Amino acid sequence: MTHILHLDASARPGLAGKDQHGSHSRNLSHRFISRWQARRPQDVVTYRDIGQNPPSIISHDWIASSFTPEPKREAWMHDTLAESDRLVDELIAADVLVIGTPLYNFGMPAALKAWIDQVVRPGRTVDVDESNPLDPYVPRLADRPRHAVILTARGGVGFDVGGEMAHMNHLEPNLITALGFIGITRVHQVAIEGQEVGGELLAESVKQALGKVDALVAELQRALQAERVEEPA
Amino acid sequence: MTHILHLDASARPGLAGKDQHGSHSRNLSHRFISRWQARRPQDVVTYRDIGQNPPSIISHDWIASSFTPEPKREAWMHDTLAESDRLVDELIAADVLVIGTPLYNFGMPAALKAWIDQVVRPGRTVDVDESNPLDPYVPRLADRPRHAVILTARGGVGFDVGGEMAHMNHLEPNLITALGFIGITRVHQVAIEGQEVGGELLAESVKQALGKVDALVAELQRALQAERVEEPA
Repeated sequence: MTHILHLDASARPGLAGKDQHGSHSRNLSHRFISRWQARRPQDVVTYRDIGQNPPSIISHDWIASSFTPEPKREAWMHDTLAESDRLVDELIAADVLVIGTPLYNFGMPAALKAWIDQVVRPGRTVDVDESNPLDPYVPRLADRPRHAVILTARGGVGFDVGGEMAHMNHLEPNLITALGFIGITRVHQVAIEGQEVGGELLAESVKQALGKVDALVAELQRALQAERVEEPA
Repeated sequence: MTHILHLDASARPGLAGKDQHGSHSRNLSHRFISRWQARRPQDVVTYRDIGQNPPSIISHDWIASSFTPEPKREAWMHDTLAESDRLVDELIAADVLVIGTPLYNFGMPAALKAWIDQVVRPGRTVDVDESNPLDPYVPRLADRPRHAVILTARGGVGFDVGGEMAHMNHLEPNLITALGFIGITRVHQVAIEGQEVGGELLAESVKQALGKVDALVAELQRALQAERVEEPA
């Protein structure tokens, strides 16, 4: 059984193609999940809508609590970390992390960065080896093959790797760096472009992206099946 | 008279070197401002502590309101944009934007991204030319010479441009892209590195950064003086 954690970061609650002013990134992530479940109904999907319910932005108390070793934490520290613990539990349980997110002002929506800042947790998703101060970080989520699927929607065009505007796209690069830091290194990406251009350009981009999502579902299910077979009985 | 907008994005409220667990980025930004005011007490400084009071994360209603032309906005739309309008007013008034910010998980703190998403505003900081759908954006803050000063603190080392870890630093690149999009293109940067390494490495980095801040204050005051002299009477 595979665990999937599905996040949507768009401020728009609806689905493009169905709801007025719907979200294109949600359209991609929901397509991914529905295709997945159609082929593997036995898998478990946890859904968190961080676009509609953004995680808290980390505070001074959060930092103090998260860097205090668990046995030394006071009651207020456990309270301060309760939200983070829930988000981290969901991430640790996941074999596949599916993130539907728009590109906002050349980077992550603040809600998605708030989620990242909640789940990069010393002692839970990354270990800090004090004896090696210049390179102390050991990712904890490299414990088994974990995949991240980043499904984005962009207003403009040319923001893919190698594209004319790629140097102005800091969304996937920041996300991939942060996920790699905690051990999630198998990353897959599909993007819709031209949301603000509209017309045929957008329609063609949506069509291609949906096709890539379908192919990615099949590819990932095969890969996970192969990984399971390779595991010792 | 020069207007300065001073932002601090750190979750830590105190100042490094003065308060326990104080913020190194606040230390830099407060040094910048105090040096500036010592030399030019007549200038106006507006302070906004987005680290302690993060701006709201933009919502579906925010997007709908900001893309509705002002004369057509309903009362709830004006309410929805009230916070953004205050932040945009402060930014438009500023000749120098001073941002003190830590590097969190290889990018902006969510609070700083929330601020960026509030101030990139169609019709206020960027115009959208519908007749040119493939390149419709015209920055509005290119109206006069505006400077941005980005003062950062990082846990690790090597994240400066050209450094070994530069490809993993998405903070300044995202910030510079977003500020350039609205017309703020004169960007100056100073960073403290090695906050989590500590010891002499950090002490030396702090010392050098404070020296660079002092030099930058003098350089910018000269530049702004020259720009004023060049203006027609």
